[in-house]
Amino acid sequence: MPMRKTLDFLLTDWLHAQDLTQRPRFAEHSAETFSAVLDTCEKIAAEKFAPFNRLSDTQEPQFDGERVHLPEPTRVAVQAYAESGMLAAAQDFEAGGMQLPCVIEMAANAFFSKASVAMGAYAMLTSGNAGLLMAHGTPLQREVFAKTEFSGRWFGTMCLSEPQAGSSLSDILTRATPDGEGFAADPLGARYRLRGNKMWISAGEHELSENIVHLVLAKIPDEQGRLTPGARGISLFIVPKHLVDTQAQLTGERNDVALAGLNHKLGFRGTSNCLLNFGEGKFTPGGQSGAIGYLVGQPGEGLKCMFHMMNEARIGVGLGAVMLGFAGYEASLDYARQRPQGRPMGVAGKDPSQPQRPIIEHADVKRMLLAQKSYVEGGLALALYCAHLIDEQHTGTPEAAQAAGQLLEVLIPVVKSWPSEWCVEANSLAIQVLGGYGYTRDFPVEQYWRDNRLNMIHEGTHGIQGLDLLGRKVVMNGGQALQALAGRMQATVARALEDESLAGLGRALAAALAEVGSATQKAWSTGEPEATLANATPYLQAFGHLVLAWLWLDVANSLGARSDDFAQGKRAAARYFFAYELPKIGAWLAVVARREPLCREMQADWF
Amino acid sequence: MPMRKTLDFLLTDWLHAQDLTQRPRFAEHSAETFSAVLDTCEKIAAEKFAPFNRLSDTQEPQFDGERVHLPEPTRVAVQAYAESGMLAAAQDFEAGGMQLPCVIEMAANAFFSKASVAMGAYAMLTSGNAGLLMAHGTPLQREVFAKTEFSGRWFGTMCLSEPQAGSSLSDILTRATPDGEGFAADPLGARYRLRGNKMWISAGEHELSENIVHLVLAKIPDEQGRLTPGARGISLFIVPKHLVDTQAQLTGERNDVALAGLNHKLGFRGTSNCLLNFGEGKFTPGGQSGAIGYLVGQPGEGLKCMFHMMNEARIGVGLGAVMLGFAGYEASLDYARQRPQGRPMGVAGKDPSQPQRPIIEHADVKRMLLAQKSYVEGGLALALYCAHLIDEQHTGTPEAAQAAGQLLEVLIPVVKSWPSEWCVEANSLAIQVLGGYGYTRDFPVEQYWRDNRLNMIHEGTHGIQGLDLLGRKVVMNGGQALQALAGRMQATVARALEDESLAGLGRALAAALAEVGSATQKAWSTGEPEATLANATPYLQAFGHLVLAWLWLDVANSLGARSDDFAQGKRAAARYFFAYELPKIGAWLAVVARREPLCREMQADWF
Repeated sequence: MPMRKTLDFLLTDWLHAQDLTQRPRFAEHSAETFSAVLDTCEKIAAEKFAPFNRLSDTQEPQFDGERVHLPEPTRVAVQAYAESGMLAAAQDFEAGGMQLPCVIEMAANAFFSKASVAMGAYAMLTSGNAGLLMAHGTPLQREVFAKTEFSGRWFGTMCLSEPQAGSSLSDILTRATPDGEGFAADPLGARYRLRGNKMWISAGEHELSENIVHLVLAKIPDEQGRLTPGARGISLFIVPKHLVDTQAQLTGERNDVALAGLNHKLGFRGTSNCLLNFGEGKFTPGGQSGAIGYLVGQPGEGLKCMFHMMNEARIGVGLGAVMLGFAGYEASLDYARQRPQGRPMGVAGKDPSQPQRPIIEHADVKRMLLAQKSYVEGGLALALYCAHLIDEQHTGTPEAAQAAGQLLEVLIPVVKSWPSEWCVEANSLAIQVLGGYGYTRDFPVEQYWRDNRLNMIHEGTHGIQGLDLLGRKVVMNGGQALQALAGRMQATVARALEDESLAGLGRALAAALAEVGSATQKAWSTGEPEATLANATPYLQAFGHLVLAWLWLDVANSLGARSDDFAQGKRAAARYFFAYELPKIGAWLAVVARREPLCREMQADWF
Repeated sequence: MPMRKTLDFLLTDWLHAQDLTQRPRFAEHSAETFSAVLDTCEKIAAEKFAPFNRLSDTQEPQFDGERVHLPEPTRVAVQAYAESGMLAAAQDFEAGGMQLPCVIEMAANAFFSKASVAMGAYAMLTSGNAGLLMAHGTPLQREVFAKTEFSGRWFGTMCLSEPQAGSSLSDILTRATPDGEGFAADPLGARYRLRGNKMWISAGEHELSENIVHLVLAKIPDEQGRLTPGARGISLFIVPKHLVDTQAQLTGERNDVALAGLNHKLGFRGTSNCLLNFGEGKFTPGGQSGAIGYLVGQPGEGLKCMFHMMNEARIGVGLGAVMLGFAGYEASLDYARQRPQGRPMGVAGKDPSQPQRPIIEHADVKRMLLAQKSYVEGGLALALYCAHLIDEQHTGTPEAAQAAGQLLEVLIPVVKSWPSEWCVEANSLAIQVLGGYGYTRDFPVEQYWRDNRLNMIHEGTHGIQGLDLLGRKVVMNGGQALQALAGRMQATVARALEDESLAGLGRALAAALAEVGSATQKAWSTGEPEATLANATPYLQAFGHLVLAWLWLDVANSLGARSDDFAQGKRAAARYFFAYELPKIGAWLAVVARREPLCREMQADWF
């Protein structure tokens, strides 16, 4: 199938990920070990995940009042994932990890997102949860919680949102109070009692693992019982479902964390998604109500800890969106090759006595497939590029690390948002290629479309990514990050201008870059955030298309003189993006540049 | 709620539909009777349909091997619809109809599409089926079949597609052979035996009515048993599920039509959707296998008969898409007014100690609501405008009728396709406004999004609408239809130029019209259909946006000097469309005008 071939090309020929093995941290690895990891994950995904993706959608998690039941194949699949060692793929060898580069870890995980994004979520959350504890936990928290998670015995969650506080985390109301006088003496960390409700908790309840390690944001009230407004007041706690001892054994006591209800979603149905009540008194650990939680890091630094790996998390969301797009692309490509319908249109019309041809021969079907190809392969290039920047940031030279950090500032909102928008569109086009069949649950494409719709919402909505990009990232440090990105784009343009066949695309990219730069300046020319940011989303869309055009040209540059089918396809997709997509930025930037006030001035009563 | 107020405004102040009562056919009506019809339908839709829309989605039609079961509220709702007389709303008084104008009939039916498009489908199909028989059936076919359908005793279907022939109807394989020597002597029509499989048959099986009247396309083989290739070979037949006599009574004999399976869809789940086997021998009417069918119209004129009311059917699809968009708009507007989250962004950032504000006060949320408003209210204007043209065509002066016919040629592909694309986008924006809640089945917006995705597929796919528009409609009769439309647009521009506040929009519309005209000419400048039509879909998109901009400006013109909230909202939506949407046509038209060959030249092996 197309995905692996493109993945290998992007990793090897485009990003030269194998060169990472020259760095001390990855010196034990080689191009072969990287490839072996991908092979293993591709195989597990194909055998244990993909065949049950529909089942995980139709047999939703069921709550019987005590336990949440999932289909057996989900348990088998996540255990196979755990046994592969991938939960600790990026961790140090001495912590039992594989010490893989981020870009290889993410590429390997991509197979699971493509096979079943909902089944894969349990593992991804656990890996992220434990990785956070490795960065911010005490030595014993790492030993007890993180390492047991890496082994697959316990799974993890992230508990941020509350029913009344989604995008606005600073308004959370969950309270954490010291658990008695000796609260500071617990070896697992300063011990608190948490009380509050957490919403949208993926994998918040299940029987897939012996225990569930919740990472929970809460506020510690001051002496008058008041909560500090804003993000400054937020702290982070480990709240295990079952209490444990310092040997990572269950004590037999159930913590006061109770499932209040399962959310029934449009997609992602195989991942249990929960409203959890902390400290409502359903259980009474130590004879009292209140969920026992152990402080991670310093009080008031909860958001900082939680967002320490936000870049990886947002790349992960974008890559997941790409993989759902890829799955739909492959399914619709396969269908289009098989399905006969319609005939060529000649000057005299169609000749109904001629046999029909496969629909892949119709220009409009090729258009829909090319659009998908340009979205999903471009999105894959974007996600891998960002993951590689994480490696640069962690293991590159000081200069490379600094440059990577700057680029990530502006690229993270893009890698989170662009695939979330355009790979849903790819899924819609896949449905369209299959026609009536695509609209049925007998084919997989409708599920991909439903699953993918979540990605514009979670881990920072589309609107929030736009505010982050235009409101912070492109102006921070005098616009250094934007300049760093422009430098990379100009290098790509320069190389394209040397190749007659790509020079036209190079000039188009240079013009688009200038257009985005100009709009950025005009947007901020009055220095009024509300006026500027009223069009942050169109800005995000235009910026994203600019980035994708750049990456497509860079990929085309890297093909050199190759003229095989694979290279021709890549060039065609690059040309498609420049011909059909990049010109859209004009419409988005016009409102940005003139600080179009319409949306801001619209009155609620006028709707 | 916003919809009725906008509907009344468009009908009365914009289209002046009440003036139709001055024509003989509608002379018995008045503005009051029109309004009473709308009131009745709004009430039935609110009471019998809307409360059960989610139920119709979750309790899908079930086949027990003999019967297809639907939830009881569906039966109650469609019976209430039948009892309202709406099945025959447009029919003559003497046929038991209400002799309503098309524009009023469609406006009234819009309430049902908004309340539950899936439950409403049974009635819409029946009305269309019977209407077709009134136009093409024999007097006895009208009496027996059409009138019994109008009474609600029997329901109807349209059986066109086959598993191997969807968009390509000329390739159907269902055969109709004369039923014995005396086949021409049956009073119900020339009697044939049909054998073949029909796919995607909405309402193809259920227990909602005493009988189901299938209208079936099939081919009559020649003496050598060969089928004529192409559309010329297709004939139309009435195939009742239960055989009937000339008194419209069931004979007690079951016809040889068998349910082969229900399709399980992404949306529209409350409408049973069937694979039907005709003549497989499950039943043996008259002692033989073969489904008995009565010819409608002349042999070989089946498509012509079926498509006689295609314009109405395509307006109906577009209006259905609009109403799903409207339902989502209203739900998200309501949510945005209630939900507090976030704070104003000042030069110094946000002040977390301030109370949160309803999300409708955020510019980006207003942008998403304005986009929805511009799509759904613009789409409603488009559908009503087209329905009104049907009335002009049927009851206007000869000049008006001719002009209406020309306008419909180019507007029908737009009214079918534009809402099907952009009101799905409206539904996606509604989900986004609700955030995580919008992604759950506890709120209605995700269902609207799923339901609406069908509209780009059925009744002629998006691609086919593009081919119809660019390949036929804009060039037929030397481009007369396009010129007629341009004339209307120029009149709107002229009026806008007289109003200082709208003159800018008028100039923008004139420029867009010129741009579309120029692209049309360039697209056809070499006279090679394959080269021109490779970009028919982007052309359709640009053309659609031009039409919507025109209608929005025309609506804005009609507001005059009004300055109330309603008028301000309409003006803001018009401005939104011109600022954020109309500029998109540049990207679409560029590939059209240069006959971009990329998609045509793409090779299947390159994917």
